Amino acid sequence: MEKLEMMYEGKAKQIFRTNDDDKVIVHYKDDATAFNGEKKGQIDSKGELNNAITSMLFELLAKKGVKTHFIEKLNERDQLCKKVTIIPLEVIVRNVAAGSMAKRLGLEEGTELKTTVFELSYKNDDLGDPLINDYHAVAIGATTFEELKVIYDMTAVINDTLKEFFLKQNINLIDFKIEFGKTADGEILLADEISPDTCRFWDATTGEKLDKDRFRRDMGNVKEAYVEILKRISEEI
Amino acid sequence: MEKLEMMYEGKAKQIFRTNDDDKVIVHYKDDATAFNGEKKGQIDSKGELNNAITSMLFELLAKKGVKTHFIEKLNERDQLCKKVTIIPLEVIVRNVAAGSMAKRLGLEEGTELKTTVFELSYKNDDLGDPLINDYHAVAIGATTFEELKVIYDMTAVINDTLKEFFLKQNINLIDFKIEFGKTADGEILLADEISPDTCRFWDATTGEKLDKDRFRRDMGNVKEAYVEILKRISEEI
Repeated sequence: MEKLEMMYEGKAKQIFRTNDDDKVIVHYKDDATAFNGEKKGQIDSKGELNNAITSMLFELLAKKGVKTHFIEKLNERDQLCKKVTIIPLEVIVRNVAAGSMAKRLGLEEGTELKTTVFELSYKNDDLGDPLINDYHAVAIGATTFEELKVIYDMTAVINDTLKEFFLKQNINLIDFKIEFGKTADGEILLADEISPDTCRFWDATTGEKLDKDRFRRDMGNVKEAYVEILKRISEEI
Repeated sequence: MEKLEMMYEGKAKQIFRTNDDDKVIVHYKDDATAFNGEKKGQIDSKGELNNAITSMLFELLAKKGVKTHFIEKLNERDQLCKKVTIIPLEVIVRNVAAGSMAKRLGLEEGTELKTTVFELSYKNDDLGDPLINDYHAVAIGATTFEELKVIYDMTAVINDTLKEFFLKQNINLIDFKIEFGKTADGEILLADEISPDTCRFWDATTGEKLDKDRFRRDMGNVKEAYVEILKRISEEI
């Protein structure tokens, strides 16, 4: 597979065209951002760590029947993936109150919820990726109610699979953000990444945060947290 | 029916106990607030106008099978209503983009939507009545998924009824906010009010705003807009 010109650069990844029109190469960077890009930095080796973590988790999910864009890990920082058009929604799953939802609802971080929460954010930097609901997403033409049904069904399987998997590593999966894309023939695939950039992982015994909140909140030992997550995943897989 | 002590005072209404434990008297004030109480004022005669408007609209909805807390209009400013515990949610219906949703989604006011939008806000002044979704509402114990099903079904009937009714008066119902309450035996009733305080009404020919946006945006002729709405409703009913 030949890596051709860059098609798109996001905050943490670059996407490259290949000599196959249906495939792209995703390159993982060390860049880290938070608060809608207001805070910027680098996390040493993050690209390699998140590429390794995402590759293993996407393989795990594929085994559980989740359709993903992931084809194979090519090297330390590159993945070969199916080409998709990203649906401009962040799908967020919250098993425990934390982050922006805790603030919005006036809850202490760590509060148990009476139900698992699914949220949508509209991917739009100018608007600050606002929280929206299903009707908003359809009203602006970002998706359809039929697509949302598929997305929520896939998301529930992903949450169940990841929660169980991480609990075996003594990690509570507090919340996570995923994105979906559509292939040229309209199939919906899990895309983007699943990593400490996009999940909240709390050690189930100590409560220690093992995710990007260490960067957001200047807690130190950021890289070490990512390394710890990769280590625990590798032990289980 | 005897009007006893005040149980509760809201921004635009007061609720009084009566000598019947299952009934309350709702008193309509002239006070007007906007932007979560940051802007405060009075609209001359608003209490009388909104009492008259709400009374007629609740009677119209009851005829269409919507269960409401409204029993009867007692005088210029007072209504007799069934006593309910208000579910702490604002249910918002948007037929056309305007107000906070237009801002959130980056849409021009007046933009047609690909679907009618239903929204929930969590009634909590300290948090600024934040937009939430169904999962949030259940997660914090404000309601249940079963109650939400009833609420959305009622809301759809209310929207269809009001949209059709106002269009006959040459008014476009752009959006509106309603609230629901539960009786002691758990029945869900439409409660609160439906008035130019809680709806956006645009003249279907001229686009002129005939609602509280005239107060919010210092457009003048605020009372005149409320009078005009009452006049058109009275002509139809």
